[in-house]
Parts: sequence; structure tokens; C-alpha cells
Amino acid sequence: MPLARIDVAAETSLETVAAIGDVVYDAMVNAAGVPEHDRFQVINRHAKDELVYPADGYLGVTYTPKIVFIQITWNAGRTIEVKKAFYKAVADGINAKTGIRKEDVWISLIDVKREDWSFGNGEMQYAPVE
Amino acid sequence: MPLARIDVAAETSLETVAAIGDVVYDAMVNAAGVPEHDRFQVINRHAKDELVYPADGYLGVTYTPKIVFIQITWNAGRTIEVKKAFYKAVADGINAKTGIRKEDVWISLIDVKREDWSFGNGEMQYAPVE
Amino acid sequence: MPLARIDVAAETSLETVAAIGDVVYDAMVNAAGVPEHDRFQVINRHAKDELVYPADGYLGVTYTPKIVFIQITWNAGRTIEVKKAFYKAVADGINAKTGIRKEDVWISLIDVKREDWSFGNGEMQYAPVE
Repeated sequence: MPLARIDVAAETSLETVAAIGDVVYDAMVNAAGVPEHDRFQVINRHAKDELVYPADGYLGVTYTPKIVFIQITWNAGRTIEVKKAFYKAVADGINAKTGIRKEDVWISLIDVKREDWSFGNGEMQYAPVE
Repeated sequence: MPLARIDVAAETSLETVAAIGDVVYDAMVNAAGVPEHDRFQVINRHAKDELVYPADGYLGVTYTPKIVFIQITWNAGRTIEVKKAFYKAVADGINAKTGIRKEDVWISLIDVKREDWSFGNGEMQYAPVE
Repeated sequence: MPLARIDVAAETSLETVAAIGDVVYDAMVNAAGVPEHDRFQVINRHAKDELVYPADGYLGVTYTPKIVFIQITWNAGRTIEVKKAFYKAVADGINAKTGIRKEDVWISLIDVKREDWSFGNGEMQYAPVE
């Protein structure tokens, strides 16, 4: 179910994109209760002027052109503690696997409902039980 | 009002992109009560590593590199039955017009409020009546 | 906190993209109570067939290939009056700085919660106070 939109710099390699995708998926399964195989990700590579962050940083965090924007749409219901664990797993994992600074891992979440998904075939696979 | 983000493989032709856009719009109008002419779509074409789906499939659905990700932001209030009819109309229509497998039609919905739109001119055209 | 996704035509210059980004950020700070330095934007440039709008216009507004799609994810809680002022500031500002028609400034908002953000470092900087 989650759809992860991942926006990175144009020169990001196949290997780094794959590693980021692996980490986001693993963090979903291990820290956020997402089912196995539920891995759907849309990556965009961007020219230099297309990833914008504050030059002076924000809330004490500073950024570089290697910033990774991750926006995830998933079902509502996860607790604050789960979301915290998810953020940490994503930043730690990306840093460990790619060397990208943890500060450059930026995450936004959008909560939706179970009926808001079709995983193919024109069906509502998560249809609520009546 | 709806904004449809449609993410497809880099080699998707002008004709196929147009057909997908037509189907999504027609399904909105015919199955989901969207007003005529309310057609706003942002398409992105992607390199092979930028559209990620589970190699083993999910919930019995399998995918190919021709997967089409469709994410729609629209106003809250549509019933589960309407959303089901919408999913079916989109997958059936894309398959009929482009030959893309129904399993490769992947849809995500985000519900927002009437005041969350400006259709140009700096105005809130759907401003709630006081 | 807000994430602004800005979708423009392929030929949009560095200068125009920067001006649009400046206007969106300034309108957030001045009209919508967003903190200073809280500027995060993801821009996408698009081929001609990738930005779709109704040929006959919608609700009396007409569009050109220079249409700018702006979709903002931010925290819930802004009033209708604030959103109206924000729409006006964005359209007026983009028109003044770039010459793009106000009608071609199209905006969509998505409200989320305070815990739905990590601004880097794997932390939930806006964690609700217990």
C-alpha cells in the first residue's frame, strides 16, 4: 500500500537509488508494520535547481545538494512512536548503505484510508469488511 | 478539481499517455461525479529503475515494467462503491485503449477539502458557502 | 514543513523557476504563517504532453502551456481566509515576477499532521508535546 515518492539529484547512481529504495521498504516492514512485498516506489531525478532547501538550514539541520526527499502515502493509524521509529530507520539505513548524510534525509507522510488503493486489476483489494 | 499524477515508463508514447489521460478523465466524470472539463493531469516519464514494484507481486497481482502509477488528489466524500467503480473503469479503459494489462494499473487516492484548490487567478473557486 | 511540488513546462528557465519558488516561499511566510527558512520545494520540468489542462478551460478560467501546477503538503489548521490570502499572494507574485498569467497558476493543498514530518537526521522535529 504505501506509495513512496523519492526525489533525488540527477547524478544519483542506479546503486544509490536501489539502496535508498531498499532501506525505505525495509523500514516500512520492520518499523511500521507494512506487509512484505508491499513495495511501490516512484523515483524522480532532478536538475540542480529542482531540489530546493533552505541555505541556512532549518531547525538546526543543514542540507546539501545530495538531499533526498521521501514522501510516503500510506494508511492512517500508525502511532507517533511508530512514525518516529520509521524516520530513524530510514535515515540510519540510508546513511549506512549510501554514505548520504542523515541530515539530508527528508521525510513527509500523508495518511489515507483503506479504500483509497487499487493494487491493480481494477479492484479495491483493501475493501473494508461490511 | 482532481489532480491526477500519472507515472509511466520513459518509452511510453504520446498516444498511450493521451489514452491513459482520456480514460482517467472519463472515469472521473462517468463513475465518480467529477464535473466536465475538470481535467488536470501531471505526467512523468521514468527511467527503468525509477518505477519500483515487488518482483513477486502483491496480493496475487503481478507487475511488469509497463506499470502505470496513478495518484489522484480530490475532494473527500466519495463512497466506497464509487471508488470501486472508478478503479474498475480506469483499469478496464486503459486495458481496452492501450493494451496495458489491468494488473499494471495501480491507483492511489488522497482526499482533501473543498477549500484546498485554486483553479487559477489566485481565487478559491470552491469556497464554502458561509 | 510544507513540501511544495511545482510542475512546469520543460523550457522554463532557471530564473523563472527560482522566481516561482521565491514567491511560493514568501507567500507561505507572509500569508500563511509558515516559519522562516522552512523552504522545501521539488520542481519537475515536463514535455508538452505531460501537463494536461482542459482545452475549454474550467469555471471560466482558461489555460496555456505555461501553466504552473503547485501542490503543497502542509500542516492542517489553516483557515479558509488564510488559504484564500495564500492563493492570491502566489498568483499575484508569480504574475508580477515572471509575467506568467494569473490564470495559469494552479494550486492544490494537502493537510497533514504535525507528526508527519522529519526534517532530517531521522528525527520527528515537530513531535507533539505529551
